[in-house]
Amino acid sequence: MLSRNQSKLITSLRLSKFRQEEGLFVVEGVKMVNELLASDFAIKTIYATHEWISGGHLPPHRYLVEIVEINDAELEKVSNLTTPNQVLAVAFIKQSKAFKCSDNEWILALDQIRDPGNMGTIIRTADWFGIQRIVASTGTVDIWNPKVVQASMGSVFRIPVYYTDLDLFLQEAVKHLPVYGALLDGEPLSSADLGKHGILVIGNESHGISKQIQSLVSHRITIPSAIPGEQGRAESLNASLATGIFCYEISRQRQQNK
Amino acid sequence: MLSRNQSKLITSLRLSKFRQEEGLFVVEGVKMVNELLASDFAIKTIYATHEWISGGHLPPHRYLVEIVEINDAELEKVSNLTTPNQVLAVAFIKQSKAFKCSDNEWILALDQIRDPGNMGTIIRTADWFGIQRIVASTGTVDIWNPKVVQASMGSVFRIPVYYTDLDLFLQEAVKHLPVYGALLDGEPLSSADLGKHGILVIGNESHGISKQIQSLVSHRITIPSAIPGEQGRAESLNASLATGIFCYEISRQRQQNK
Repeated sequence: MLSRNQSKLITSLRLSKFRQEEGLFVVEGVKMVNELLASDFAIKTIYATHEWISGGHLPPHRYLVEIVEINDAELEKVSNLTTPNQVLAVAFIKQSKAFKCSDNEWILALDQIRDPGNMGTIIRTADWFGIQRIVASTGTVDIWNPKVVQASMGSVFRIPVYYTDLDLFLQEAVKHLPVYGALLDGEPLSSADLGKHGILVIGNESHGISKQIQSLVSHRITIPSAIPGEQGRAESLNASLATGIFCYEISRQRQQNK
Repeated sequence: MLSRNQSKLITSLRLSKFRQEEGLFVVEGVKMVNELLASDFAIKTIYATHEWISGGHLPPHRYLVEIVEINDAELEKVSNLTTPNQVLAVAFIKQSKAFKCSDNEWILALDQIRDPGNMGTIIRTADWFGIQRIVASTGTVDIWNPKVVQASMGSVFRIPVYYTDLDLFLQEAVKHLPVYGALLDGEPLSSADLGKHGILVIGNESHGISKQIQSLVSHRITIPSAIPGEQGRAESLNASLATGIFCYEISRQRQQNK
């Protein structure tokens, strides 16, 4: 049974302000809560239907988690999903710490990504390609936004996203590492020589990489359009697509140079 | 001023059933309506604020379009967007016709893509890379769904999507063309030899390519994870990401073999 206060807390966590105040975020659905349970995130409360509770999802070392049995109607009332799925967990936010770039890794830098779906997909894609750290400008959408969490398919539990003044971060980083920017007027990606480390900057969905950040990009790169037949006609590629294609090319060149 | 019937018609077009009955769909916002006006789609009515109407957006040859001036509150009432933007157009659906595959093009085949955002992004990405025709299984989300239209950024006006029994379509096509499937257990994409034509099958977001369609795939391809450092850890890539990376590789190999 869901109390009024519990219900109020859960729905309040849709807003960044309350997530920050409470230090909590929401994870939903069987698959995603399984990912949460497999991670090292601390969980405050699990709200679940009888079906989930009797399904044996809870690993033994998680016995200290508070579990509240609720029914489908209660779940629907607080859920952010179109089709709620048995379970909703409230977990503690882990703040990502500042870091220095090492010289044998690729880092993803996000400049004002605003769409939660894009943000989640970018994190999932980075995770697929083995990127281990993401740095984001303070204007980038909050990773603990429920839509980001769900779109990441659990990758938010594996990749820390560090929010900072991206300008200052890159001013320091560019002294040691090449900074690649996905822009419309650069060198074609497939002819760029991508090494074993670097920073890849992905810009805002509407405005691309901001002027200030562009001045810190040492390698301007373009993803060429067109396959056999015709020129491409769309104006631009989606930000998460650009991230994925870039990561693919890094990975491809690495295989080739092995 | 928006009449009750107009308002009812517009909001009814959120549902596939009414879009089919009326043969109409909705396009929203300044940029997207500009794309619509630049296309050869017939427009039924444009609902716009005074700002838009006095902004000179309407090209002279579109003078037969019915224009209804509405205010911001009225626009908000019927809009599908979080932030409505000056204008909403109701346009006539163009049915895509059956086609035979020619032997010098790449065709995208979609097997049960369900998420409207994914579908729109796939169409936009195909357009970026110059793909000119898409075939979709009948279970794939309708391209005239407002979320698909908006996510495509106007590419729905350029690329016809033909809905059919994908199974039958591929049974015929595989006699002439290689059929590539993005699967988790195939040959690595970067070592596959992609020619100047073929069919690329992209599967459902949760279940991948269905068993029946898999049996028609002649080349099973995988997008390898991992970049310098580590193995990737996400379970899978988003369907639109897989499409984009595949198209990029086709384009890259083509440049290389020129």
